[in-house]
Amino acid sequence: MTPATSSSAPHSAPSRIVITTGEPAGVGPELTAQALAAAGAHWPDAHFTVLGDAALLTERAQAVGIDWSALQGRRIDVLHHPLGAPSRPGKLDAANGRYVLALLDTAIDGALAGRFDAIVTAPLQKSTINDAGVPFTGHTEYLAERTQTPHVVMMLAGTGQRPLRVALATTHLPLKDVAAALSVAGIVDTLRIIDHDLRHHFGLPAPRILVTGLNPHAGENGYLGHEEIDVIAPALKRANAMGIDARGPYPADTLFQPRYLTEADCVLAMFHDQGLPVLKYATFGEGINVTLGLPIIRTSVDHGTALDLAGTGRADAGSLIAAIDTAVSMARHRRAA
Amino acid sequence: MTPATSSSAPHSAPSRIVITTGEPAGVGPELTAQALAAAGAHWPDAHFTVLGDAALLTERAQAVGIDWSALQGRRIDVLHHPLGAPSRPGKLDAANGRYVLALLDTAIDGALAGRFDAIVTAPLQKSTINDAGVPFTGHTEYLAERTQTPHVVMMLAGTGQRPLRVALATTHLPLKDVAAALSVAGIVDTLRIIDHDLRHHFGLPAPRILVTGLNPHAGENGYLGHEEIDVIAPALKRANAMGIDARGPYPADTLFQPRYLTEADCVLAMFHDQGLPVLKYATFGEGINVTLGLPIIRTSVDHGTALDLAGTGRADAGSLIAAIDTAVSMARHRRAA
Repeated sequence: MTPATSSSAPHSAPSRIVITTGEPAGVGPELTAQALAAAGAHWPDAHFTVLGDAALLTERAQAVGIDWSALQGRRIDVLHHPLGAPSRPGKLDAANGRYVLALLDTAIDGALAGRFDAIVTAPLQKSTINDAGVPFTGHTEYLAERTQTPHVVMMLAGTGQRPLRVALATTHLPLKDVAAALSVAGIVDTLRIIDHDLRHHFGLPAPRILVTGLNPHAGENGYLGHEEIDVIAPALKRANAMGIDARGPYPADTLFQPRYLTEADCVLAMFHDQGLPVLKYATFGEGINVTLGLPIIRTSVDHGTALDLAGTGRADAGSLIAAIDTAVSMARHRRAA
Repeated sequence: MTPATSSSAPHSAPSRIVITTGEPAGVGPELTAQALAAAGAHWPDAHFTVLGDAALLTERAQAVGIDWSALQGRRIDVLHHPLGAPSRPGKLDAANGRYVLALLDTAIDGALAGRFDAIVTAPLQKSTINDAGVPFTGHTEYLAERTQTPHVVMMLAGTGQRPLRVALATTHLPLKDVAAALSVAGIVDTLRIIDHDLRHHFGLPAPRILVTGLNPHAGENGYLGHEEIDVIAPALKRANAMGIDARGPYPADTLFQPRYLTEADCVLAMFHDQGLPVLKYATFGEGINVTLGLPIIRTSVDHGTALDLAGTGRADAGSLIAAIDTAVSMARHRRAA
């Protein structure tokens, strides 16, 4: 991919990006090295702090033909955290569960204290942390809890001039529980967060949000479900009264056609599998995940630890490069706002 | 679009295709004329019977610059059905509800009697029929009832060398009712129908079907829902024992990535908005709708009556051309089977 959003602002202070390299048995460490190998060209105005075990990072970079020591110093520093136990590619070990969390804690604390402008997270394995005896449901939930944020919004995005962005009104719920989880207040708050962050972290002065219905054909005037009439339309009305340009509810299979997407800065889908298949289809593995609503900036890859690819160099750094690129851009827009 | 599937089989009898021109106030009549204007080049081995009011068809063809009389005779016949009342573009009139149904009845009766090899339906407006006092929920349901078929499957498809095809386990249900509507027997029967029709009407000797989960991440081993474990996996096991190559359940946002889709002849999605947004996104308005499981062949456009475009010539005939192309191809494969 070609990062498109970080044309430099040469006279401003560098964006300070912290990268958590995530599960040590996964592809995070090697993808970080691969992504940063081109950092000088891609992000001339950023400084990177990489969190992980220094020896692990060196070893995994070497496995994919990158000399980590040559990277360091060129605005890239490693902040060493020791592994709980030696890690081999593809082999999960609960002894490293607290290591993975420690990387996250360092990043969050640093961002809250203003030492970092944005966090980029490589993938972790929930089971490693759970098996270490720590309840953990995911990056997003952990970030919300550690920053005392009651409501965050998951948004996935592609990159490019007019990127496709898809935010979700509900995320990791069984499908049967989705309808009951929607509320007017919840959707209004979700729209408020999207509108705010698109303005202040993405540099969009007048974001336009297109909103799907919940049911097929957006309920077809009540014939195929009532949530559009009872919940979504009233939420849109309230959001509009707050000055938010949100429109809908539209049938998802109409809205997600290319000709309509060009009119949207963001699509708000009602649930996971309504919004993400198109996003993943359209971004070809270079999608990213952004957590909106936090007091700090956080972007992430949209893939998992790919244990079967770890150490092989065959994993694609495209999503991590895009996540770093977006973080650099968001940090710059936030400072300018 | 460039029809890709109908390279001719010069020595066989022509495929006899019947086209219902649908709602007279919509774009059906003019799109039919536009699609057939190129029929000689696209479908040299097909014969077309167009159902509609002869004067209406002439008038709407004229509005988009096509001389209907020049079309006729070149393996294209009009079977005249009189309108209930004069029709103007964009103006619905319940007096034409029974006209729309009569077109369908002629097509179905003719196909059942062996006079037509395939039916292609232009869009109709349900409300016109309902307002005429006839309960009607849609083309697909009407075809199932009139042919006494207990179970049909809705499949949408693109065209081309390796077309994307998406079939649905449930169709027009409120989202909250989807989970309860899934059953092992229902999914097995759906897979059986897909497998049969892909073999016999699409000429695929060994169709591979990839199946989504119902919940985010296909339920993540039961953490995000149990239908994958309780319903979908047992259905796949039973289908496999019947010789059907169906695999899954896979997370929808993984499965719908281009690199996985290349391994599928058809994706079975569990519900409407899980499967159709990607299909519509990928086919750019040239998707088609095929009803599987009927004793007759039926294809359709994947769009509505577009009342606002009727009579303007600005509607895109791509989907109807693709629907005709698929019907011609299916008829040929069925005869060869």
